[in-house]
Amino acid sequence: MARLVMKFGGTSVGSPERIKNVAQKVKREVEAGNQVAVVVSAMSGETNRLVDLCKQIDPVHDQREYDVVVAAGEQVTTGLLSMALQSVGVKARSWQGWQVPIRTDGMHGKARIDSIDGSALIAAMEKGEVSVVAGFQGVGPEDRIATLGRGGSDTSAVALAAALKADRCDIYTDVDGVYTADPRIVKKARKLDRITYEEMLELASLGAKVLQTRSVEMAMNHRVRTQVLSSFADQPGTLVVDEDEIVEKQIVSGVTYSADEAKITLVGVADRPGIAAGIFGPLSDAGINVDMIVQNISEDGKQTDMTFTLGRSDLDRAVALLQKQEKSLGWKRLVPDRNVTKVSVVGVGMRSHAGVAHTMFKALADKGINIQAITTSEIKVSVLIAADYNELAVRTLHTAFGLDAE
Amino acid sequence: MARLVMKFGGTSVGSPERIKNVAQKVKREVEAGNQVAVVVSAMSGETNRLVDLCKQIDPVHDQREYDVVVAAGEQVTTGLLSMALQSVGVKARSWQGWQVPIRTDGMHGKARIDSIDGSALIAAMEKGEVSVVAGFQGVGPEDRIATLGRGGSDTSAVALAAALKADRCDIYTDVDGVYTADPRIVKKARKLDRITYEEMLELASLGAKVLQTRSVEMAMNHRVRTQVLSSFADQPGTLVVDEDEIVEKQIVSGVTYSADEAKITLVGVADRPGIAAGIFGPLSDAGINVDMIVQNISEDGKQTDMTFTLGRSDLDRAVALLQKQEKSLGWKRLVPDRNVTKVSVVGVGMRSHAGVAHTMFKALADKGINIQAITTSEIKVSVLIAADYNELAVRTLHTAFGLDAE
Repeated sequence: MARLVMKFGGTSVGSPERIKNVAQKVKREVEAGNQVAVVVSAMSGETNRLVDLCKQIDPVHDQREYDVVVAAGEQVTTGLLSMALQSVGVKARSWQGWQVPIRTDGMHGKARIDSIDGSALIAAMEKGEVSVVAGFQGVGPEDRIATLGRGGSDTSAVALAAALKADRCDIYTDVDGVYTADPRIVKKARKLDRITYEEMLELASLGAKVLQTRSVEMAMNHRVRTQVLSSFADQPGTLVVDEDEIVEKQIVSGVTYSADEAKITLVGVADRPGIAAGIFGPLSDAGINVDMIVQNISEDGKQTDMTFTLGRSDLDRAVALLQKQEKSLGWKRLVPDRNVTKVSVVGVGMRSHAGVAHTMFKALADKGINIQAITTSEIKVSVLIAADYNELAVRTLHTAFGLDAE
Repeated sequence: MARLVMKFGGTSVGSPERIKNVAQKVKREVEAGNQVAVVVSAMSGETNRLVDLCKQIDPVHDQREYDVVVAAGEQVTTGLLSMALQSVGVKARSWQGWQVPIRTDGMHGKARIDSIDGSALIAAMEKGEVSVVAGFQGVGPEDRIATLGRGGSDTSAVALAAALKADRCDIYTDVDGVYTADPRIVKKARKLDRITYEEMLELASLGAKVLQTRSVEMAMNHRVRTQVLSSFADQPGTLVVDEDEIVEKQIVSGVTYSADEAKITLVGVADRPGIAAGIFGPLSDAGINVDMIVQNISEDGKQTDMTFTLGRSDLDRAVALLQKQEKSLGWKRLVPDRNVTKVSVVGVGMRSHAGVAHTMFKALADKGINIQAITTSEIKVSVLIAADYNELAVRTLHTAFGLDAE
């Protein structure tokens, strides 16, 4: 017997038929002798409908009341799934955030979970009742409804699994696991049986939209064994676990990319102390995150070129901010570039293997792909390249690191 | 300065535009110096949509989970109206049943309000904040969401007005008040400025769908001055008040009808003790309410005819139940009749005026309308007639009791 948290996203509960399908999956786990708590999102489309109603009332609205409106979406799903479970003979009841309770910091619209009192749910599970918990919501300090922000249901599920000391948290979604690369680009991509928290975290923050970054952080911090699997297929997915649980470590576990990048080059910036602060201070104040930074070696000691990357959606704003300070910074040319992509290889095996960067650069050079910038972490190497080469680069690296399926 | 509860039904909050219109009405009361709490229904169509989702999951579903699903409708409206009030400069916040709290007996789907703790709302109103409260819902003994049944938002509003010791409860709806008769039938019907609780209660239970019966009972028991008025027009409606507040009492305040009636006649029933119990016992056991009963005087002391009325939707079931007992009861013929209507005159003035029944019977007789059964209460006379004469009878009585507008 195990204790499980099962989480179903909006697509998985998008219609009464699909909710009945979810009930069957839960029933199977209950009949296998498991204690089960389920976390659900709003039915697909519902959150957008509610957000749109808020915007029609006032485009600039109170986040606390926004939370009241959108939290209704998950509430409806909890009731419907509880009914569906009962009608296939499984004891079940719904729980809203305030009933559990799931306490948050009360930052409405993007709250963080402070604590979950699992005692009532554990008592319910121990008498054989499935607890159907509304994802994405909790209560703030004054017992007002607070939501965790879009995608927060993954975080709800992992946090609940931690509070219930669950043996596993199963995140059912519309993909059947984590792949060595995006299968739409790499035909020979393989589904990973297991991946470490650290690798999953890098993949999540690099743009692989399988799990929300915060939920992976929480899984890592509380050592929650988390499985990503499809709600439309009956097969195991990918298990996100501690490094100890992975016997045969790959040097590189996956190749990923982020196409939402842009680049700015300042040509002929004065090479003097304080210039970097002068460039990046205003961007940071405006909430614009800069990722990679490359400063060329100054040949004459007087001026240099500075290149950095940022989110593509921030590009116009960043250019406008920098142009305001053209005089104080004194560059010759400002060159914005939307035509870039960031390709990364990720793997905990890198820690004990030198030469990953070399293999990567050589493979790309052999295909004539020019590297515009590089960043590394302990378990990741990322390069910025021209967007046109995105698919070619991902496929090339997938082959170079021996990830292709036979 | 007064303390007001304003209640808006589903049609009044049926779209973002209409919610903004409601915000303007509330703003006007606040600017007039009043303390205001607002009770709202779900947006029109929303409750039906949610009920339909429940039915799609399972036609026979858990009432507790049904309550969780449908209560989401009112929750959404509270958030949207709070936003709309804020955006016109009125301080406001939403309150769900569990937050107030509104405690009920936990009879899910048709709960009754046990108590309302008004202290938090009074504190909010005293600092100038409008409380936007979800109608139709409260919590049961175990803090589970319970709903009051369809139309329960009127009851929420009146109960809240009692708990807050409000000076008035304004029920905004799609009609502009209580009329002396249905204006669709009687062109000369007049809107009443005032009506007593007792009269309103008779009208509500006779089928005039202006206010829910239970809300009128509650207004009467707690002496809540309740106004029915239109949310689409800017004019006073009808005030439901204590008899003391009505100076010039009419003998008859209104003429009403109920078209949902049916009649059963048992011809040639044995005239012996216990026969009435034999007929009405099984109907009562099956939850079928019998309204009027007429037993003819037995001519030979051996057999008699028995006529009674019941809700038209119960007719088939009642006939089937009676036919099962044909042998033990031993009638000659069972004659069901759907083609009947009940027309009533209502007025507290009847208490001190004889002759109302006589005036009524004579007026109908003059038009050749045959009376099939009669019931009376202290402030009401009802007659059963053939359905074809419904409109004629209502108009005739409206004129006979001097109610026609000039």
